[in-house]
Amino acid sequence: MRMYDIIKHKRDGLELTPQEINHFVAGYAGGSIPDYQASALAMAIFLRGMNARETANLTMEMAVSGDTVDLSSIPGTKVDKHSTGGVGDKTTLAVVPLVASLGVPVPKMSGRGLGHTGGTLDKLESIPGYSVQQERARFLEIARTVGCAVVGQTADLVPADKKLYALRDVTATVDCIPLIASSIMSKKIAAGADAILLDVKCGSGAFMKTTELAIELAQAMVDIGEHVERQTVALITDMDQPLGHAVGNSLEVMEACDVLKGSAPSDIAETCVELAANMLVLADKGSLDECRRMVRAQIANGAGLAKLCEMVEAQGGDAAVLHDYALFAQPKVVHEVRATRAGWVCHMDAERVGVAACELGAGRERIEDAIDPSAGIVLARKTGDWVERGDVLATLCTSDSSLIYDGERILRSAYELGDEQPRPVPHFLARVSAQGVERLA
Amino acid sequence: MRMYDIIKHKRDGLELTPQEINHFVAGYAGGSIPDYQASALAMAIFLRGMNARETANLTMEMAVSGDTVDLSSIPGTKVDKHSTGGVGDKTTLAVVPLVASLGVPVPKMSGRGLGHTGGTLDKLESIPGYSVQQERARFLEIARTVGCAVVGQTADLVPADKKLYALRDVTATVDCIPLIASSIMSKKIAAGADAILLDVKCGSGAFMKTTELAIELAQAMVDIGEHVERQTVALITDMDQPLGHAVGNSLEVMEACDVLKGSAPSDIAETCVELAANMLVLADKGSLDECRRMVRAQIANGAGLAKLCEMVEAQGGDAAVLHDYALFAQPKVVHEVRATRAGWVCHMDAERVGVAACELGAGRERIEDAIDPSAGIVLARKTGDWVERGDVLATLCTSDSSLIYDGERILRSAYELGDEQPRPVPHFLARVSAQGVERLA
Repeated sequence: MRMYDIIKHKRDGLELTPQEINHFVAGYAGGSIPDYQASALAMAIFLRGMNARETANLTMEMAVSGDTVDLSSIPGTKVDKHSTGGVGDKTTLAVVPLVASLGVPVPKMSGRGLGHTGGTLDKLESIPGYSVQQERARFLEIARTVGCAVVGQTADLVPADKKLYALRDVTATVDCIPLIASSIMSKKIAAGADAILLDVKCGSGAFMKTTELAIELAQAMVDIGEHVERQTVALITDMDQPLGHAVGNSLEVMEACDVLKGSAPSDIAETCVELAANMLVLADKGSLDECRRMVRAQIANGAGLAKLCEMVEAQGGDAAVLHDYALFAQPKVVHEVRATRAGWVCHMDAERVGVAACELGAGRERIEDAIDPSAGIVLARKTGDWVERGDVLATLCTSDSSLIYDGERILRSAYELGDEQPRPVPHFLARVSAQGVERLA
Repeated sequence: MRMYDIIKHKRDGLELTPQEINHFVAGYAGGSIPDYQASALAMAIFLRGMNARETANLTMEMAVSGDTVDLSSIPGTKVDKHSTGGVGDKTTLAVVPLVASLGVPVPKMSGRGLGHTGGTLDKLESIPGYSVQQERARFLEIARTVGCAVVGQTADLVPADKKLYALRDVTATVDCIPLIASSIMSKKIAAGADAILLDVKCGSGAFMKTTELAIELAQAMVDIGEHVERQTVALITDMDQPLGHAVGNSLEVMEACDVLKGSAPSDIAETCVELAANMLVLADKGSLDECRRMVRAQIANGAGLAKLCEMVEAQGGDAAVLHDYALFAQPKVVHEVRATRAGWVCHMDAERVGVAACELGAGRERIEDAIDPSAGIVLARKTGDWVERGDVLATLCTSDSSLIYDGERILRSAYELGDEQPRPVPHFLARVSAQGVERLA
């Protein structure tokens, strides 16, 4: 078999055979297939597409290209969760303990954030002492005894995807649904869960700008799950404005704790309930309505927060901060951004809020950049709110006062104030499962 | 400007700007753009196409990427000729001196043959003493004084095309009309001629298998000529069976001499007259009919053969071989292949004849392989001929008797004998010029 013929077949619109996909992934990860052939194939896939069978085969070949995690020592249906990423998305921090508190194990591996704001690992590391690096045996032990654990991906998880993604990133072949779907799903499959809940974000702050594209991506990932017998459900949720009010690392941990205490803003609170309930459904804990009620009860009775404290302590963190936020490292500068006119917040650009938070120190541009755990933004007003002239729009936090000027300038450009009250934007747009697409808005 | 955006624009079907094409060609030839980005762009061009303006810009950028030849010291309209290559195509050897004998200078650079049979340079090198390596000044002097010269391309002619072609060859992006057209035309333009005659081969032994594809390629090249003000005409000629009876290096030189002596088979003789006449038309020597008559006169009066002898001597060769073929190096083995049944030759696979000749030593698989100048095949029967059982189909020549077995096996598979007389195949299929496409069959 020659890589040349594999490129030619995809170029001509043929379906690649399982043998061809295996030859490509093994050869590329192993170094016998050069970048220039892989990028020609990626462009051919971009322009010719891949069907569900090819996408599933690509996913499985990438999943087994490196280390895979064996979760069989943990009893029960292990459920994983993945978000395609958005600004202010701290749902993992609340959803994982809520689900675990109901007896469904959630052993979770997470990646580092690159871009606007930190990833889940960066957020957890704002808790003093919390370690995301755990030996494999210890990771499994925590998941078994506590019911949940959130650790960093091992270096050798899905090396084929790591190499291919880096290549796609410089050859304009990232925005391709079969390739995005197989990249995400290969990591989830290698991480060993039995069932997967996906949160596909949609809107100005998300990779997928329209509901239709988000549904298409969700469908591709659910199809992969079907093919490889990992039950998969996807929720399409709005990311036209940031989720909740907090954007930053320790700021988001606090808001996640607010969710578990029942005191969070309704958009983030409802999103967490919905995600957790869907994970419980995947573990056969009851109907969606039953599961929602169970989740709400774990918030009301404090069991979710208790489970988060338990996990934090098992991973070396100081859980006291989750009760007393003043124990977090505090920002040196806190600066209020006030409205220069009255009006309705008629639109927010979520991506710009993320860029502003990154500017303040909450994110990183290069993987080696350090993060300021206390930096970020607390939004006082969001889309649909009325603002008087002089009202606080948002509060900026940073350890470096020289960053305030640019942070404020970028944040202001994220707000659009107008005279007409905007129509409310639905938060849940669709639910995609093996049974089909259910539109929710 | 970033190569990433150039790839993205072509991926999305946009027209590349002259600046983008310049950035790509200069950067790729200069080494600042890596192969993996160039191959992604090549695949995007393959699947999205390029319009006439982009193709002309790409051609010119490649043409000026290295050495260019200044022919201004040679008076008159310099006309070049290019054939897309076929089995038994020895037309250059006859056409160049015929045109030069009528006062139109033909300073020609040629490439090495790779594949079935040798290229024009390999054929000329079967003439004892003939040197294809000439200093630039000497090349121009020969072209000025004799009227024609055929030399090897300088190493630095169109380096961007050389690099891009090698990459396309391993990434399944060769069969793409804008890329083929710009590759061919960039070399002709760098070589400095004022006008260009193209012989686009079509059929089983050619790169272009159908007349429609051959016309499309011809049109693309004529369009490039229009854009860059080099008058260009293309003839589409049949290559469903080999041209003439001889396939090999010295064998083809002999047959080209037969053309100049008026004793060649009619298909090759007529092709040479037609090509030479079209070159004369490009140099404003008269109407096509007038030019055909002039060419025939140069064959009848021996002026074409005399001009070939003059050129061969100017380039160090022994012109005596052109009069007495026994002076060529002779093959050690001459083997007749005889028909095992009676019938009409109803089809020949030109490519297989080429492969058989290559097997006997007439071609090379790698650029460093040596060629056997005396090896090759003389076809005694071609499509449309009647054969009795036991008649000679062809004669194989080689210096290595161990090659006969495979050579005969492959050659036999190129002949298809049947009971019905095939319909005659027209040799000239179309003529493409700035005035449009004129179908000839």
